[in-house]
Amino acid sequence: MWSRRCRVLAASGSLLGTCLLTETPLIPKLPVKPLLLETKAPHVEQARTQDIAATQWLKLQTLTYRDQTGHERKWDLVTRTTRTDRAGVDAVIILPLLRSSKKSEVDVLLVQQFRPPVAGYTVELPAGLIDAGESSDQAAVRELKEETGYTGRVLRTSGPLTMSPGLSDETVKLVVVEVDLDIPENRQPKPQPEEGEFIQVMRVPLKSLSQELTKLQKRGVMPISGLFTLAEGLDLALSLKV
Amino acid sequence: MWSRRCRVLAASGSLLGTCLLTETPLIPKLPVKPLLLETKAPHVEQARTQDIAATQWLKLQTLTYRDQTGHERKWDLVTRTTRTDRAGVDAVIILPLLRSSKKSEVDVLLVQQFRPPVAGYTVELPAGLIDAGESSDQAAVRELKEETGYTGRVLRTSGPLTMSPGLSDETVKLVVVEVDLDIPENRQPKPQPEEGEFIQVMRVPLKSLSQELTKLQKRGVMPISGLFTLAEGLDLALSLKV
Repeated sequence: MWSRRCRVLAASGSLLGTCLLTETPLIPKLPVKPLLLETKAPHVEQARTQDIAATQWLKLQTLTYRDQTGHERKWDLVTRTTRTDRAGVDAVIILPLLRSSKKSEVDVLLVQQFRPPVAGYTVELPAGLIDAGESSDQAAVRELKEETGYTGRVLRTSGPLTMSPGLSDETVKLVVVEVDLDIPENRQPKPQPEEGEFIQVMRVPLKSLSQELTKLQKRGVMPISGLFTLAEGLDLALSLKV
Repeated sequence: MWSRRCRVLAASGSLLGTCLLTETPLIPKLPVKPLLLETKAPHVEQARTQDIAATQWLKLQTLTYRDQTGHERKWDLVTRTTRTDRAGVDAVIILPLLRSSKKSEVDVLLVQQFRPPVAGYTVELPAGLIDAGESSDQAAVRELKEETGYTGRVLRTSGPLTMSPGLSDETVKLVVVEVDLDIPENRQPKPQPEEGEFIQVMRVPLKSLSQELTKLQKRGVMPISGLFTLAEGLDLALSLKV
């Protein structure tokens, strides 16, 4: 797992890295079996978290935690400086399901854009950071409108989900939104991009999501993992008759 | 979208942040329409990427890119220092499908563990960094064996997928692995955790993945987003008859 870091560091003999392994004074040296020690709950010692560097948007930190055996360890992570939601959720990912009385097929909206961190184009579900004072549902409806022009209604919202828990504390909620194509607001959807935002919206039948992602990949467009696994789930259900 | 950062910065009037907006000398001041300018390909100017800070495992950077209109902009990101795969992929995520001649149901393996960056327990698909000299398929088979004890055979491997493209350049491949429960190696699977790794393996019928994630969430275990959307895809296919 991502904790390979610890083995590598231990092998190098360095004590200055991020996987410092020390005897802990908190575990009494009693004649208990190792198995008992391993039932101790692991926890992060927040007060000992160290800020390495920060920009306006991201902060690099090294935190201290105790594992199941009571050993003290270190871990590097990155955190967003923009988190405003009281529940500690950074962003929403929106699954927009488009329905019309005219046909039974359900479509989904995808967004393509240039993403500087990966130096190329990605295909993703619409998504966005939660603004101060906003609920995750409000953020989902707003971001969907801004990015795609469509007006939606929240069907359900997940609990917090982690994005990449070896690397960051970033969490999101998945908000499933119904877009009724029969209402006047959705007849001529006009995206309202922010300054500097260049988003191309795609409308894809759910049943051909997987094929569309394959086509896009051939053109060098990289899917975000959560969208790819959504397509994988759709395909698996059909092929395995789950 | 995540580019909300730009608007906020522009509103604050700061020129020292990460969204510096300047006139670019590369776009000639010709009487061209804005629409034409927007067809220019956006690109990252790698030579101007600035390292802000680094630890042994993560590096915080600010990169410079030009958007579709030729404007120069800045973006913060975090990158892993451990990438060894020639194709630039950091890690593999494994989707282990368990089959047995004794029943038609397909099971999936999940892993639960304490993740310091989110200060709590997560439920994820098995996953791991690609070691130096390893292919993504080799990494998937090795990690599956280490984390769960099961021996698997690669069925298919995705292209590179981005994990959180507003925050990092981290990419993964999804490797679908078949685990044949009839072969002797899989009769008594014994995980081979690395030092400091405490992983609990769960075996779940694919068809009840969603319910299992709900149960785990009630106990405070946070799913990783890609696993949650896999379950969402399975459910959607069943409920919508996609």
